[in-house]
Amino acid sequence: MFFKTISVKEFYNLFLEFEPIKETMDIHVFDGLDMVIAEQCIAKEDFPPFVRACMDGYAVIAKDTFGASESNPVYLKVVGSIDIDKVPGFEINSQECARIVTGAPLPKGADAVAMIEYTEEISEDEIELRCTLSPGDNLILQGEDYKKGDVLLDKGTIVRPQEIGILMEFGITRVKMYRPVKVGIISTGNEIVSPSTDPLPLGKIRDVNSYTLGAMIKKHRFHPIIYDIVPDQKKSLIRSISKALKECDVVLISGGSSIGIKDLTEEAITSFKDSHILCHGVGISPGKPTILARIGNTPVIGLPGQVTSAQVVMHILILPFLRYLSNNKSYMSRYYFPYINAYLTHNVPSKRGREEYIRINICYEKDKILAKPIFSKSGLIKSLVKAQGFLKIPASSEGVLKGTQVEVLLI
Amino acid sequence: MFFKTISVKEFYNLFLEFEPIKETMDIHVFDGLDMVIAEQCIAKEDFPPFVRACMDGYAVIAKDTFGASESNPVYLKVVGSIDIDKVPGFEINSQECARIVTGAPLPKGADAVAMIEYTEEISEDEIELRCTLSPGDNLILQGEDYKKGDVLLDKGTIVRPQEIGILMEFGITRVKMYRPVKVGIISTGNEIVSPSTDPLPLGKIRDVNSYTLGAMIKKHRFHPIIYDIVPDQKKSLIRSISKALKECDVVLISGGSSIGIKDLTEEAITSFKDSHILCHGVGISPGKPTILARIGNTPVIGLPGQVTSAQVVMHILILPFLRYLSNNKSYMSRYYFPYINAYLTHNVPSKRGREEYIRINICYEKDKILAKPIFSKSGLIKSLVKAQGFLKIPASSEGVLKGTQVEVLLI
Repeated sequence: MFFKTISVKEFYNLFLEFEPIKETMDIHVFDGLDMVIAEQCIAKEDFPPFVRACMDGYAVIAKDTFGASESNPVYLKVVGSIDIDKVPGFEINSQECARIVTGAPLPKGADAVAMIEYTEEISEDEIELRCTLSPGDNLILQGEDYKKGDVLLDKGTIVRPQEIGILMEFGITRVKMYRPVKVGIISTGNEIVSPSTDPLPLGKIRDVNSYTLGAMIKKHRFHPIIYDIVPDQKKSLIRSISKALKECDVVLISGGSSIGIKDLTEEAITSFKDSHILCHGVGISPGKPTILARIGNTPVIGLPGQVTSAQVVMHILILPFLRYLSNNKSYMSRYYFPYINAYLTHNVPSKRGREEYIRINICYEKDKILAKPIFSKSGLIKSLVKAQGFLKIPASSEGVLKGTQVEVLLI
Repeated sequence: MFFKTISVKEFYNLFLEFEPIKETMDIHVFDGLDMVIAEQCIAKEDFPPFVRACMDGYAVIAKDTFGASESNPVYLKVVGSIDIDKVPGFEINSQECARIVTGAPLPKGADAVAMIEYTEEISEDEIELRCTLSPGDNLILQGEDYKKGDVLLDKGTIVRPQEIGILMEFGITRVKMYRPVKVGIISTGNEIVSPSTDPLPLGKIRDVNSYTLGAMIKKHRFHPIIYDIVPDQKKSLIRSISKALKECDVVLISGGSSIGIKDLTEEAITSFKDSHILCHGVGISPGKPTILARIGNTPVIGLPGQVTSAQVVMHILILPFLRYLSNNKSYMSRYYFPYINAYLTHNVPSKRGREEYIRINICYEKDKILAKPIFSKSGLIKSLVKAQGFLKIPASSEGVLKGTQVEVLLI
């Protein structure tokens, strides 16, 4: 069967062929870091729940300070001190004030806080004040952060530390979240043996891909399930895919990169009824022979066998897809492609017509950040360990010149 | 006691006053993601363990192809096919070749692989070859990735997915790693109550800091231990610090931001014998009232009570310190401060003499990435939730003009 190579953007559009997962779990917010919220969270009260000082100083009536300045201070009577955690029992009347600390509730009558820096204690119960205040100065109003009924967090929000903070602020300690996406990984290859194999039989090599891909999945808080290594036989591969389909939301097949084996993955997928190949070939280098298919409603992905290629495909194509399947509404956000700017140390030529990703070693020369391209055969894992990032060369470009400032995508 | 405000760089230099943790644990490499390696890992064999093809095609003797081209092909006899996982039993003699797939071992006699694209099968046992090869072409040599005895990973390396891959490649499934740094968090404040408190008594607010800071610690794979909320009393704070000193590698005290309470933290620390305040005040905004102290050999840190300030201090000062204590040899790497470039939508003024961090909301206008500064009172948590990053304004700058391209540090 013949497939046209699709662009990275077209690959992203294929996400919509699949339904994000629906299962949710009710969990403690502090255990929900990096998970996705499955229900709208609403403020059930105002925050702050009362008018609070946001500076240390004196609670005053602003009107009493009108015209006050360094050269023309006003004098106020100190009628008390306000405890941080108690609504004050007394009231402030004209020409009066009360000591207050940041966070404490404002007493009745007062409408501003004078910062301590502009005041001086004249006696036990009198201060000199050297600034003019407007009502509301140095206060946080009741409900200024959120009002009762406000949406705190929407369905589809990913939970960062600050989202945990806001939920705690409102006493929302348990929330419905989507359970993590389960990603099955099947490595194929007659030559592949388990990492614990020692000594290595002649002609064999140990399984690197399952664990490298598995760790990438884990790092982004999805749930990897690593299956037994499958020999290059259609029947075995079909059996393994069947098992994974029952247990996972997505199945990754990390195949050998030889022509015969690429066919094997496609043949195994299409031998399932209700299967459909959505793409075989993406305009990305390395990573072209990527397959995206569905069996029933489950996405099945064929990855290139070289771990260096598979890593690029994971970062650029698959992690965004897993974010989509997780219900993360920001799944395509640039937030997930952080970089640092650096100066390229060598010319990097590229072919037009495909996005190319060059492994980059970041180094420093005085205060200058340098991006050193790693040119090596794609089968060598040393280049992965030496790399801190990728340089992306767009499909429309023929390369980047030495000395150019580039964005190095961190990996 | 009077302390001079120190610069961020001076704060980093204080790290060296402390010893990184020494305890290690022997763990399965796949469970060691984001941990730090505590022993040098050495290749106990060559990788690849044999000469491998890195293309699909034919194993040949390069000399037989000299002069071959599109217009002047050579003809070779096909003497067999090479299984990917078996060292071939036969030898290639002059004018002979054998089918080979990517990753398969090269047969004896051959010294190059001809890519399938440059060949054509003339008959069952003869090919036409249309390119000239040099010895070594399309091969990965034995030990080309790593030679027996090479250092794979050094002590102090942080484990990313690719480091897991390389260890698996060499059958190193268990490695000695430093155990995660244990970080105690003590929140103080008479007004602070547990997030599960419902309804909220008048004058009280729920504990946001312990969980926001705890989640930041967790996100970076350190181990947070959250202690009970402590009222603003020296005796209670001392008791809580004593407990945390026994159980943690670092103690964070998230205090109220009022003047009286700042003193309390310092007083509680100095009341321990063998305590020493290393700094009280860092030239960073927000975050100035940060305290770094030692009690015995344990670092004790006083954080500003506003969660927005504490977040800046954590990102810029404390997470690098925790990386240092973890034995991560790249603890100051720019790798940990990823950003995206964006255009500032508003003028941002700043005071000289301190590094300032402005919360930024990232938004998009067509293909342009915009950095929208969030101007809000520092006590409002909404600004944290709306922010995706910080804009850093160096101590030497008086601000940044609207329209400038800036690096937004992602948080």
